[in-house]
Amino acid sequence: MASQIANSAISKAAAVSSRSLESAKAFAATHGIGKAYDSLDDMLADPDIEAIYIALPHALHKGAILAALNAGKHVLCEKPMALNAGEVAEIAAHPRAKSLMITEGFMVRYQPQWEWIRAQIADGALGTVKQVTAFTALQLPPPAVDPARGTLAGDRSLLLDIGCYSVHLVRTIFNADPLRVSALIERDPVTGLETFIKASLDFGGRYADVIVSNVLRRGRRIHVLGSAGSLEIMTPIHTPPTGAKVLAALVGDGNADPVEQVFPSVEQYGLQMDDVSRHIRAGDQPRVTLANALRNARTLDAIVASAEAKGAWAEL
Amino acid sequence: MASQIANSAISKAAAVSSRSLESAKAFAATHGIGKAYDSLDDMLADPDIEAIYIALPHALHKGAILAALNAGKHVLCEKPMALNAGEVAEIAAHPRAKSLMITEGFMVRYQPQWEWIRAQIADGALGTVKQVTAFTALQLPPPAVDPARGTLAGDRSLLLDIGCYSVHLVRTIFNADPLRVSALIERDPVTGLETFIKASLDFGGRYADVIVSNVLRRGRRIHVLGSAGSLEIMTPIHTPPTGAKVLAALVGDGNADPVEQVFPSVEQYGLQMDDVSRHIRAGDQPRVTLANALRNARTLDAIVASAEAKGAWAEL
Repeated sequence: MASQIANSAISKAAAVSSRSLESAKAFAATHGIGKAYDSLDDMLADPDIEAIYIALPHALHKGAILAALNAGKHVLCEKPMALNAGEVAEIAAHPRAKSLMITEGFMVRYQPQWEWIRAQIADGALGTVKQVTAFTALQLPPPAVDPARGTLAGDRSLLLDIGCYSVHLVRTIFNADPLRVSALIERDPVTGLETFIKASLDFGGRYADVIVSNVLRRGRRIHVLGSAGSLEIMTPIHTPPTGAKVLAALVGDGNADPVEQVFPSVEQYGLQMDDVSRHIRAGDQPRVTLANALRNARTLDAIVASAEAKGAWAEL
Repeated sequence: MASQIANSAISKAAAVSSRSLESAKAFAATHGIGKAYDSLDDMLADPDIEAIYIALPHALHKGAILAALNAGKHVLCEKPMALNAGEVAEIAAHPRAKSLMITEGFMVRYQPQWEWIRAQIADGALGTVKQVTAFTALQLPPPAVDPARGTLAGDRSLLLDIGCYSVHLVRTIFNADPLRVSALIERDPVTGLETFIKASLDFGGRYADVIVSNVLRRGRRIHVLGSAGSLEIMTPIHTPPTGAKVLAALVGDGNADPVEQVFPSVEQYGLQMDDVSRHIRAGDQPRVTLANALRNARTLDAIVASAEAKGAWAEL
C-alpha cells in the first residue's frame, strides 16, 4: 500500500504510527513518509493528517475508527471494518459518521476486471443472474501471533479474513443482500479456528454458494450463471502480474466456447487510495460505503449463526 | 453410436429395430447394418443377436430391458437405465440379471480424461477430496414430442436427461454414494418441466453441489477440491474436437497456477461398445454395473424427494 501511494499524484502518505517509534521511523524512511509516531492518538492530533488508513489487526479496527472520528479524520479501514455488524453499527452511530468519509478496504473493487464485470451485469449481458459460486481454497501458513498482543479475537478467523471477500463480491454481483443464509463451518479441533466454510446465500430465488477453506489446495474462482450468459472469474481477488482472466460466454455466443477477457494487473491499493482521496475532496462517500460494510457484516454474522444452528436458515 | 461401431474391430452392429420397417431399413443402409426389423420382439428373437443397445425414450427403457433379458440378450441401455430406483430394482430382480451383462450408457466414462482423473484421485494426488461442484448450464431447444407416442413420462426431465450425468460423475469422483441430499427444483409454470435444479449431496463431511439448468447459459464445469490438490474439469461430459482440458493444481505445485492437462477427443460411444463387447466375452460386468445404476437412481430419487419436501434432507 505505502509503495503504491508513493506512485500517486493525488494521495500522499504524511505520517505513520506504530507502537514502536523505531519501527515507525524505519517504515517512514523506507517509504519516504515525513513523520513517524509511536502513538495513534498523537498522530490523530496532527492537524496535517486528513485521513487515516487502518491496517491494524481486525480486533483493533473499531477502536481506531472511533478514535479517528473523534479526531475529525476520514477513514479507510482494511476489510473487515469490524468484527461483526454490532461493531459496524456502533461506528455508524458515531455523531461524525455522516460528515466524515468511512470506507472498507476492498481493494479488489478497483480492479478493471470488476468494473467490466459490473458493467456486463448492469447492461444485461448476462440476463438474470441466477447462480453464483465462489471458491477460495488456499493453504495459508499458520497465522503469526504477535507476542506483545497475543491472539486477538477475530484476527485468525478465516471467515473474517478471507470469507469476507467472497461475501462482498457475491453481494456486488447481485447488487443485493441475501435474505437468508444456510452454512456449515468446520473448525480445527485444537485451535477452534475455521478450516472449511460452506454457505448457501438465498437472494430470493437467486443463489450464491460460498466455499472457503485454508486446508484445501487450490481453487479460486467465481462462476456467474445468468439467463443470457455466464462468467468464470479465474482470479477473483488477487490479480497475477500477467493480468486477470475472465472466461465469458455471453448472449449471442450460442453454445460457442467462452471467450477469454484479459485485464491488466494494476496497483489496486493505490487506485483505491486515490479514489478515497477524490471522495474526501468531493465530500461524498466512495464505492464501499459504511452501509455496505454493515450489510456485509450482517451476512457474515448470519453465516456464523446458521452454522451454530447446524445449517438452519438464518434470516438477515 | 452406429458410425462409431462401424469403426470397431471388436463390435458389430448386426441389426436395427424401429417401429417403421422403412426407417429401420434406411438406418441399416446408412450404417452398413445387415438386418432391419420393425419390432423389438422380432429382433430379440434373432439368434444372431448377442446384445442390444437401447436408445429408446427413457420411459420405454425398463420394458425393453426386461424383454431383452427374457430373450437372453445382454444389454447396453442409454442413461438413465430407468425412470427411478424402483424400476432399476425390478430389472435387478429379473432371474437372468446376474448371468447377463446389463450396463448403463455413461459413455463419458470412456474418455481418457476421466481415466486420468480417477487415477489421480485413487493415487492420492488430490489428498482427501472434500468439495466437488458440478455445473451444467445449457440452453436446450424445446424437446421434440413424438406425435405417435406423445410425451412420455420422464423423457423431458432435465434431472433424468442431464442431471444424471453430474450425479454419476460426482459419485465416481468420491467413489461413494451420498448419505443424504438437500435439493430444490424450479419448474416451468406451464409445462411443469424442471428448469433449475440445485442439490447438495453430503458424502459424510465431504460435499458435492450439483447445479443443472436448461435456461441458464452457459457453464459446464466440475471443480474438485482436495487437501493436496484441485482439478477444474473444463469439459466434463462432451469433449470438443480439440480435446478435453483439465486445470490441475496438484501437490507440490504450492500456490503456482494450475497446469493444463489436455486429453485427446475420442469416439467415446465406440470405446464404450468395445468395452461392453469385451465384458460380454469375459462373462463379467463392465465399469457401470447394475448396482451402480441402482445407486445413481436412488440419488436422483432423493433429489426429487428433498425438493418436494422444500429442501429438507432426504436420506438415501
